[in-house]
Amino acid sequence: MKYFSEPFRVKYSDTDQMGYMHHSNYLRFFENARISWLRDLGVSYKNMEKDGILMPVVASSLKHIKPAFFDDQLYIQIILERLPKASLEFSYVVLNQNEDTICRGYTKLAFLKSNSQKPIRCPDFIYKLFDK
Amino acid sequence: MKYFSEPFRVKYSDTDQMGYMHHSNYLRFFENARISWLRDLGVSYKNMEKDGILMPVVASSLKHIKPAFFDDQLYIQIILERLPKASLEFSYVVLNQNEDTICRGYTKLAFLKSNSQKPIRCPDFIYKLFDK
Amino acid sequence: MKYFSEPFRVKYSDTDQMGYMHHSNYLRFFENARISWLRDLGVSYKNMEKDGILMPVVASSLKHIKPAFFDDQLYIQIILERLPKASLEFSYVVLNQNEDTICRGYTKLAFLKSNSQKPIRCPDFIYKLFDK
Amino acid sequence: MKYFSEPFRVKYSDTDQMGYMHHSNYLRFFENARISWLRDLGVSYKNMEKDGILMPVVASSLKHIKPAFFDDQLYIQIILERLPKASLEFSYVVLNQNEDTICRGYTKLAFLKSNSQKPIRCPDFIYKLFDK
Repeated sequence: MKYFSEPFRVKYSDTDQMGYMHHSNYLRFFENARISWLRDLGVSYKNMEKDGILMPVVASSLKHIKPAFFDDQLYIQIILERLPKASLEFSYVVLNQNEDTICRGYTKLAFLKSNSQKPIRCPDFIYKLFDK
Repeated sequence: MKYFSEPFRVKYSDTDQMGYMHHSNYLRFFENARISWLRDLGVSYKNMEKDGILMPVVASSLKHIKPAFFDDQLYIQIILERLPKASLEFSYVVLNQNEDTICRGYTKLAFLKSNSQKPIRCPDFIYKLFDK
Repeated sequence: MKYFSEPFRVKYSDTDQMGYMHHSNYLRFFENARISWLRDLGVSYKNMEKDGILMPVVASSLKHIKPAFFDDQLYIQIILERLPKASLEFSYVVLNQNEDTICRGYTKLAFLKSNSQKPIRCPDFIYKLFDK
Repeated sequence: MKYFSEPFRVKYSDTDQMGYMHHSNYLRFFENARISWLRDLGVSYKNMEKDGILMPVVASSLKHIKPAFFDDQLYIQIILERLPKASLEFSYVVLNQNEDTICRGYTKLAFLKSNSQKPIRCPDFIYKLFDK
């Protein structure tokens, strides 16, 4: 399963004095794209947290192919890596307005009960979203 | 009453492509300096929040005199503007390694009970810190 | 003259442990909205910088009326305060999805030549954008 | 070769509404620690950039073992993975005030000439720092 995020601009405050978008921003963009995908599938991450389920990132990796610059229009392709069990794994491709692949990434998320902070298995309603 | 923060470096990720430290960082630095001052006075803001008191910023202003650059060593002077009542008002002077004043600022903080999110008067233990 | 930004979501990484959007984000949002307004008026801030003109923020203020929360859809109204001369002054109103005014702000920007870092008067092509 | 950073506090603005330090901050902390190590070895990254050498991050990974919380005192151990050639590889261990390992990371940096943006081999003065 795949999802393409809406395009979004690299903001001025995302740049650094090298003139590039600072590399720490990709992890934020991946998070934004995941949350948009869930919303698109009918799930509010905000409500999930209110219902007591947290999804912290437990591992990630990034490979930078080209820099991103101020005002670039980026969009993100998310790919579900496998059906979720104890964790949810996505890979990401970040493209710019020229369809250049500028970054590839990966994140692994856990499921936690917020009151106990204990790991749980993937909730059924999440599993069903991706089991198609 | 006054407090001088420890000096700290402008981080690479704080810069923007203009080669300046991005102006939005000053509000973060003021917050860090306030929390250090409270710690210095024997109060843990972390524990205050656990005890149910929040101190959100309700107003602020900034005046930039000179830019700050990557690797600059800044420190912050905080001045209590008046004895706290319903709010806590500080002004700030940011200096660099050459003793240049680079920014002046002001923040006003409210006191809220975290369960009700209602404003309260300045707690006694905070008032006493500053009543000297 | 006025401009209304596109609505945008409060991102997860914009929140803090108080459960609010951190107050330092407003200055970033104002910048994004200014740059969108300029783009809408036919001016690329990116190209302005390449052409040697910088527009640093020299003063700002914020007044917080209500908090913003994760996933809120905010939009920003920008008002030109007066015709630009040596500086460009805007005020801002931030509204959420319920049409609540949550924040009011102000910024003053200078014009600098990037090679000399010296202040200049408002360039003609900027003046004309706003002289209507 | 190894380096231990100075301890530093998790800032309020680094937290998110989950009550954790947001995971995107680790890449910023690794950068800060690298720059401190270079300074400790007698090299100013600021001057390197002025001399026309950029060191962008080209790959990174993170593994989160425990969360970090507001006000935690963290420090970072950096390990040189191998002698630098076309790139510089470090691994990182982040520890908190209880000596818990909370995160492990890795970054790979390239060397670029800033005028041409072309990759170059590790400059001699950098190689010599680590060849001990």
